[in-house]
Amino acid sequence: MMDAMTECAITFGDLDPMGIVWHGNYFRFMEAGREAFGRMHGLDAMRIHTMGYFTPIVRSVIEHKAPLAYGDSVTVRTWMEPSPAAKVILHYEMRQKAGGHVVATGSTVQVFLDLDRKLVLDLPEFYRNWKAANGI
Amino acid sequence: MMDAMTECAITFGDLDPMGIVWHGNYFRFMEAGREAFGRMHGLDAMRIHTMGYFTPIVRSVIEHKAPLAYGDSVTVRTWMEPSPAAKVILHYEMRQKAGGHVVATGSTVQVFLDLDRKLVLDLPEFYRNWKAANGI
Amino acid sequence: MMDAMTECAITFGDLDPMGIVWHGNYFRFMEAGREAFGRMHGLDAMRIHTMGYFTPIVRSVIEHKAPLAYGDSVTVRTWMEPSPAAKVILHYEMRQKAGGHVVATGSTVQVFLDLDRKLVLDLPEFYRNWKAANGI
Amino acid sequence: MMDAMTECAITFGDLDPMGIVWHGNYFRFMEAGREAFGRMHGLDAMRIHTMGYFTPIVRSVIEHKAPLAYGDSVTVRTWMEPSPAAKVILHYEMRQKAGGHVVATGSTVQVFLDLDRKLVLDLPEFYRNWKAANGI
Repeated sequence: MMDAMTECAITFGDLDPMGIVWHGNYFRFMEAGREAFGRMHGLDAMRIHTMGYFTPIVRSVIEHKAPLAYGDSVTVRTWMEPSPAAKVILHYEMRQKAGGHVVATGSTVQVFLDLDRKLVLDLPEFYRNWKAANGI
Repeated sequence: MMDAMTECAITFGDLDPMGIVWHGNYFRFMEAGREAFGRMHGLDAMRIHTMGYFTPIVRSVIEHKAPLAYGDSVTVRTWMEPSPAAKVILHYEMRQKAGGHVVATGSTVQVFLDLDRKLVLDLPEFYRNWKAANGI
Repeated sequence: MMDAMTECAITFGDLDPMGIVWHGNYFRFMEAGREAFGRMHGLDAMRIHTMGYFTPIVRSVIEHKAPLAYGDSVTVRTWMEPSPAAKVILHYEMRQKAGGHVVATGSTVQVFLDLDRKLVLDLPEFYRNWKAANGI
Repeated sequence: MMDAMTECAITFGDLDPMGIVWHGNYFRFMEAGREAFGRMHGLDAMRIHTMGYFTPIVRSVIEHKAPLAYGDSVTVRTWMEPSPAAKVILHYEMRQKAGGHVVATGSTVQVFLDLDRKLVLDLPEFYRNWKAANGI
């Protein structure tokens, strides 16, 4: 399955008093990557909701390698880690667009809840089909 | 009707590269004021929703008088401007807590939508009752 | 002087419980428009800072005309209102990209502070030159 | 060394379309906890900066256990993990205030940069003294 690529601009309001992007904003970059992945592969939050599920994030990790400054853009590469469990595990690599070096890496784990917000332990049928169709 | 008072702390992530609170964050302070007003007077967003309405903001104005810095807290005073129209007009005065001087003033206008998201031109009954009970 | 055009994607985290973009996020759209204007016309925040000035926002107005939902993108058109005063007055028109209709309009007023954060009442020389070069 | 306790209110703008707090906002709760810890123990970002250092976050982890909804408040308990390295490792436990149950846990790792933004590998003297004074 192809990795998804997306790009985020940095604006003044993203910066902290050190003049670099505040660490909490990287979660927006990861969200942009997650949504690009969902659009590319037919697994976006609204489609999942139509199928009768929510997929809240239960774990996020982010490792910062280098700062981002005003005028930079960041490119986000997003890919899925195969898992037999009823979980969606995504990985993210964020690079400064101009220089091409890695500024951060991250991952998120999502679980499936039904519309009553009960945890779903077996793979939802639509997701099993989606995995089969994508050879995972 | 009494003005509502609430207080917001400033954190590092609220600051911009000038070391002062980024202007977009004042909308969170006004939201905190609006919610304090709603809780105090029984007019919060969830109660309104239970009554069958949404009240989206259709106009926001904010005037900045002085900066806020790291370590400051801001106090928000919120009050209602009486209006015969099917609108909720709120005013906000934000002061630096320690010094007591005004750092910003603002206002918001909200309208009523029904659950089909159609604009409601007549005062909803619950709101007419609420105004009567509060002598407005 | 040409209007600046830019585009912002909407992500899940931008939405409120009504499933529409939270009003406070439009200030990020306006900031993206302001920075696109600055880059296009050589008037960005960092260049201004190099010239010895800060340009904090002292007034923001936003009028919401229609909601934005998940999957929408917004295009921002930004232009300057000529003013003889030592102020930068910008206007913004935000449209839903797919449908093309206006979702919001807004404006911001910025003043000039010197590096001691004192208000500058006369037009800074670099800004007078910039205005002349741009026929304003 | 005593754990630091702080409290954050939830506002409408913190919620996502599921009606629960968007996961990215927990980083603001952790920041509030970190600053409460800093104020309590004399280790806040501005004091560190005065000593000639920045302490950017290089790793964040957050585990979500239960959702937060409109009207909830969250209490944040913050404590330090002792480490011989030139790192500040903090842990966070977030509870729903009314019910008292844990909604999330998290941790952050900060490193020391000097004012030229070079990584500092040895413990800064002020930090060694701070640790000694606090029996760590």
